[in-house]
Amino acid sequence: MSITRAGCAALDSADPLRGFRAEFVLPENVVYMLGNSLGALPRRTIEAVSHTVTAEWGRDLGQSWNTAGWWDLPEVIGDRIGNLIGAGPGTVLTGESTSVSIFKVMSAAVRLRPGRRTVVVESEGFPTDRYAVQGLAAGFDLNVRDFGPEGSLADSLDDDVAVVLLSHVDYRTGALRDMAADTAAAHAAGALVIWDLCHSAGALPVEVGAADFAVGCTYKYLNGGPGAPSYLYCAPAHLAEAEPVLCGWHGHAAPFAFEADYRPATGVRRFGAGTPPILSMSALGASLELWDKVDIRSVRAKSVALTELFIALTEPLGLDLATPRDPAGRGSQISFRHEHGYPIMRALLDHGVHGDFRAPDIMRFGFTPLFLRYVDVYDAADTLAEIIGKGIWQDERYQRRVTVT
Amino acid sequence: MSITRAGCAALDSADPLRGFRAEFVLPENVVYMLGNSLGALPRRTIEAVSHTVTAEWGRDLGQSWNTAGWWDLPEVIGDRIGNLIGAGPGTVLTGESTSVSIFKVMSAAVRLRPGRRTVVVESEGFPTDRYAVQGLAAGFDLNVRDFGPEGSLADSLDDDVAVVLLSHVDYRTGALRDMAADTAAAHAAGALVIWDLCHSAGALPVEVGAADFAVGCTYKYLNGGPGAPSYLYCAPAHLAEAEPVLCGWHGHAAPFAFEADYRPATGVRRFGAGTPPILSMSALGASLELWDKVDIRSVRAKSVALTELFIALTEPLGLDLATPRDPAGRGSQISFRHEHGYPIMRALLDHGVHGDFRAPDIMRFGFTPLFLRYVDVYDAADTLAEIIGKGIWQDERYQRRVTVT
Repeated sequence: MSITRAGCAALDSADPLRGFRAEFVLPENVVYMLGNSLGALPRRTIEAVSHTVTAEWGRDLGQSWNTAGWWDLPEVIGDRIGNLIGAGPGTVLTGESTSVSIFKVMSAAVRLRPGRRTVVVESEGFPTDRYAVQGLAAGFDLNVRDFGPEGSLADSLDDDVAVVLLSHVDYRTGALRDMAADTAAAHAAGALVIWDLCHSAGALPVEVGAADFAVGCTYKYLNGGPGAPSYLYCAPAHLAEAEPVLCGWHGHAAPFAFEADYRPATGVRRFGAGTPPILSMSALGASLELWDKVDIRSVRAKSVALTELFIALTEPLGLDLATPRDPAGRGSQISFRHEHGYPIMRALLDHGVHGDFRAPDIMRFGFTPLFLRYVDVYDAADTLAEIIGKGIWQDERYQRRVTVT
Repeated sequence: MSITRAGCAALDSADPLRGFRAEFVLPENVVYMLGNSLGALPRRTIEAVSHTVTAEWGRDLGQSWNTAGWWDLPEVIGDRIGNLIGAGPGTVLTGESTSVSIFKVMSAAVRLRPGRRTVVVESEGFPTDRYAVQGLAAGFDLNVRDFGPEGSLADSLDDDVAVVLLSHVDYRTGALRDMAADTAAAHAAGALVIWDLCHSAGALPVEVGAADFAVGCTYKYLNGGPGAPSYLYCAPAHLAEAEPVLCGWHGHAAPFAFEADYRPATGVRRFGAGTPPILSMSALGASLELWDKVDIRSVRAKSVALTELFIALTEPLGLDLATPRDPAGRGSQISFRHEHGYPIMRALLDHGVHGDFRAPDIMRFGFTPLFLRYVDVYDAADTLAEIIGKGIWQDERYQRRVTVT
């Protein structure tokens, strides 16, 4: 039974999420499979940012810290994100970059396990996660233990392990870890666990459950905009004692008392430090409004259907699938290993299909169910077949490397 | 010889900076003396942010990391700021909050003086500076030594002092330190020095000179917008060896190689960590374009004239001036200590004069020469006289505290 474009169009017509595509600005003749890197622009964001610039800043000026609620945005937006990851009110904070959030929670977590001097990170984890931990470890004289994708987490744990940092979905392969099982394994060894939700929140149901901490970015499946602030989660059990080593006035118990000494705020606010970038926060806040109407189970169901469709359509190409074949074991992306992955992805882009390349050899396609259609997936597979089949990728112009891929 | 409003209007007509006011959005009937806290909205910023949202993000999507130069913004904008603080190209980086920047440079500075375990900070410094250092010191087991405003810096130094963190302009009193002299004193004791330029860059000529590091915020006199990213400066002599403890992929030598281990970039880029908030960066970039046409010496001359005018006009009120009387010893603000400072500032705001209150008793007025006029200063003084003279501030509604003042 062959898959036809008309069949895909029929799936789009029956899609319970079909109404959401109109909420986004998407260029004509583009199949955007890069929503796992930078999400598309929600239409409502245009008006929201404009309002923040001209009315809140331009007209109301510094008063907007009160009147527009700027001061409370890190927690207000945090609570909205909490709804997407199974975290209760007052446990999620937004405002600074993912690297900074990782550094904050890792430094706080290590302090909760005094006497233990080792942190476990994935050998194939997203580099900034590794770099943040390596920097902290060098400064605080901790041991960093690498944990490979093939190994068992339990085998990497012992009574010197203070904290384990894991990615819910692997950024290269799209492999999905079992959060509950890994969290239990870490706890069984007396370690705390931090989850990186960058590639899962907004793409599939996430439940922080017994996790101690989590961090995530908002510019991928949450469509918060380029460089949108990250979020961090702290389990209620740790809120009273967690103290990140990176402190600032937004995390103080009484920021406008201008006290000489640091005193952490009650609750997740204690993870605040610097003043958050309000224009970027405004865009993020607008994008999150969309989620009030979204059933995340429908998102996951469509994500599985779209990725299954893409695997089926590209099967004749004989590509080396880097993503787990079982949909239960992957997030919302499909990756192939290919020695010519770079020029192939450049040629695809030139033909209207946006995906990306991740060194050394990964061709990556993201599936954002809120705006990606079944016909888009059909067209992407068709274009990929043409580019490989006709050797279009061999054109000289696709070999040239650009700074950011 | 009394000062008249007509005389002030004449000064405005002769002001070489008079053309710049039209570059800003300013509400009718408002005297905005809070530019030292949140600068006003430059008109060009409206279009710039709109372009970034709709064209760069909405239309060009992830390609804008290359095509719109997003990836290079931290250094490109950094170089523009460098022009305002006497720092050469490739020595200034933007992208994260002031608290994070302070943490980064302080952690790098301490490592450049191994064996020395004390850092000196101002007892009256801006709280977030103190908090960032206190957090780092607790984690790194450093001693924090307070240095009072009345003391001599040299007396606070000895051979255990690794780093001194000083504010160029005091946020409460507006007192201006002698950067060259203090830098020399720190160096004479073998210590490094970090300057906080939050309340000076953009308000007066700044020369980093022999300073080792500097940080500053961009939402005050630089009008970058609420929560606009901060900047940090690293002296060329330290660029090859400085290593902040907070690391991330934007600071890596080859960020798109996705290497497993951190390797700092060459140059100031090594201070990068997380992905910068692009919408806020866009606003900052637009605001900085204004400075290409500004002679900072004219800004300083007008700042001195405006602050002298305000002191003269308010003299009959017998207020307790907290700012140095000699203009050479102050930045671009005037502060008074007053036991009823809070309700007075609330009443002023209600009468169209925006200033702010800083606990415990400081009434603060900022002077941004690019948009503040002599007649504005006249009107502000007039309103202040009325509010104090008629006891308007005693009204019950001005006593109520709001979250952010």
